Amino acid sequence: MSDEAVTYFPIERLREFSSRTFRHFGVPDADADRAAEVLAASDLRGVDSHGVARLHTYFDMLTLGRINPRANVKIVRELPATATVDGDNGLGLVVGPKANAIALEKAEAVGSAVVSVCNTNHFGMAGYYPLKALERGLIGWAMCNSTKLVAPLWGAERMLGTNPIAIAFPCATEPPVVIDLASSATAYGKIEIAKRKGAPIPEGWAIDKDGNPATRPEQMIEGGALLPLGSTREAGGHKGYGLAAMVDILSCVLSGANWGPFAPPFALRQEIPARSVGKGIGHAFGAMRIDGFIDPAEFGRQMDDWVRTFRATKPAPGTPGVVIPGDPERIAEAERRKTGIPLLAAVVADLRDISQKTGIPFE
Amino acid sequence: MSDEAVTYFPIERLREFSSRTFRHFGVPDADADRAAEVLAASDLRGVDSHGVARLHTYFDMLTLGRINPRANVKIVRELPATATVDGDNGLGLVVGPKANAIALEKAEAVGSAVVSVCNTNHFGMAGYYPLKALERGLIGWAMCNSTKLVAPLWGAERMLGTNPIAIAFPCATEPPVVIDLASSATAYGKIEIAKRKGAPIPEGWAIDKDGNPATRPEQMIEGGALLPLGSTREAGGHKGYGLAAMVDILSCVLSGANWGPFAPPFALRQEIPARSVGKGIGHAFGAMRIDGFIDPAEFGRQMDDWVRTFRATKPAPGTPGVVIPGDPERIAEAERRKTGIPLLAAVVADLRDISQKTGIPFE
Repeated sequence: MSDEAVTYFPIERLREFSSRTFRHFGVPDADADRAAEVLAASDLRGVDSHGVARLHTYFDMLTLGRINPRANVKIVRELPATATVDGDNGLGLVVGPKANAIALEKAEAVGSAVVSVCNTNHFGMAGYYPLKALERGLIGWAMCNSTKLVAPLWGAERMLGTNPIAIAFPCATEPPVVIDLASSATAYGKIEIAKRKGAPIPEGWAIDKDGNPATRPEQMIEGGALLPLGSTREAGGHKGYGLAAMVDILSCVLSGANWGPFAPPFALRQEIPARSVGKGIGHAFGAMRIDGFIDPAEFGRQMDDWVRTFRATKPAPGTPGVVIPGDPERIAEAERRKTGIPLLAAVVADLRDISQKTGIPFE
Repeated sequence: MSDEAVTYFPIERLREFSSRTFRHFGVPDADADRAAEVLAASDLRGVDSHGVARLHTYFDMLTLGRINPRANVKIVRELPATATVDGDNGLGLVVGPKANAIALEKAEAVGSAVVSVCNTNHFGMAGYYPLKALERGLIGWAMCNSTKLVAPLWGAERMLGTNPIAIAFPCATEPPVVIDLASSATAYGKIEIAKRKGAPIPEGWAIDKDGNPATRPEQMIEGGALLPLGSTREAGGHKGYGLAAMVDILSCVLSGANWGPFAPPFALRQEIPARSVGKGIGHAFGAMRIDGFIDPAEFGRQMDDWVRTFRATKPAPGTPGVVIPGDPERIAEAERRKTGIPLLAAVVADLRDISQKTGIPFE
């Protein structure tokens, strides 16, 4: 959270409100509950940008009929270890869990699998999906594309989404290692926070509309672009661009979704691309059976050792020391299960607006 | 190449010399030819750091008996879409191609596959392996760990290798998209070049032995560490660390190889870790059948469109504009097939030294 004022809400109340909002549009009960669970997982894990803070956007898209509330999610092509899933323009929060479950089932059957998904919408926090794999003792990964925001290295316009990659590994007694990263140098939310504060942004985050380094958030927002992870050629910006391209191709070109700059918008304020090259946006999911490689007990012991070894790294001066991927989210969840979820006033106002428009009680 | 003086050698001569050097130690003919091919692919594609410039290191390791020239590479555990391969402490240039071929065969059979490899050694350029997948019409990827050089974000010591990720996608008429990136902010070779030139290094590349930002190459070389892709917390250094961790776990923990700081050294100058947690270093390979997801002709058409769309990105001022991943290597190969391979005087001296010690003629 930033240092702005917040109010705390129990997660159960937010989950219930989200589920009822989805049901209001005719989303079937089980799908609405699952979609609300994906949002709640974000709120619990401290990924505020992907939780109920986005409920109003889903609400808007459902209100306008841009998302199909009763999607018939189906496999359109498959082999034992692959599938392409067509999400029937459903909520990504519904299509994502169903397609991910197909990847998990296929991996359970033959050891590993990859599922690519077209005709879908924003699927929430990427890290949610590998967590579902962990529940079944599998290694799981997830990717998705999103509306263009990021310039390829040496480009002067938005061509790629922030295209995240998430993967999780179980330990025996230590908490799991959960890696969840966007392939951009920073998140658009951090540009918005800087704008609200009237603060400058560091070089390496963004460019302006002409492709020059942006130092004020408005320069990025008004027609500029985020930079890929690595930022400059010297510091590896071609690598972040390469990762974003990989996510784009695996999630979209492979499934028949809209890739690159043609990803349809998630929010109303975003421009609709002039051209369509496929159906909806795309996701990709994968999973692996640990016993397809090694004795799972031995894997767990080695992972425990891995976590303890990295946690014991000599810390750099003036830093908290090395963090195990997934630790901040796990710590946030333990805290928030006690305190409730801290919501900014603007988010509370959004939820009240939904309440007013739908008649679903919020407080 | 840097701006240092070079001499040109035909690729066939270098390939022949490499193969005969491997055979000198009893590496079977087919294995020696394959190992020489991996090195030659690097030299052709302009990845000078991973070609014959490293032959003397392989020579050293074979001379000392640290690498098994007649390795019996075998599957030790498998499911239809997974395998763990034990490389029997062979040359990574031999174990890698064999394990990769297993991944390709399994993907051909069931649609996708993942193979993790232990008890192996340095496998050369990561991008070589997905190129072999392309020859069979598959999407392929490769990863490997290596001797510790990189600090996790907020750490003050070397804990991870430069752990590369490579993946390649075929097009219909455009050249393939070949992504090949290390998960560090920069390559160790660039630190060495700065040292030879007496030049400073940019902030974001490395830290000194106490974990403070390094500005001189010696500060990194003498007990410091490279930084992960993203460099600082603000610019996404936790993401590069997360990617390096992913590569480390998929290549090593999953196969039973030495992970993290315990990776055995590749070169004689590198320290041997006090502890061993597995066998050798690790690789991971994966492959996917395109027709397990989409009509391959349609995939090819969309990839052509993808490449042309990204190539047409508005360029940022003062840059060459957006580069398609794989283009620089393809252009280098076309050039080098005509001019021969440019080798630095130090590399030529290394090859002459091998020639002198083995009696294999070099010039």
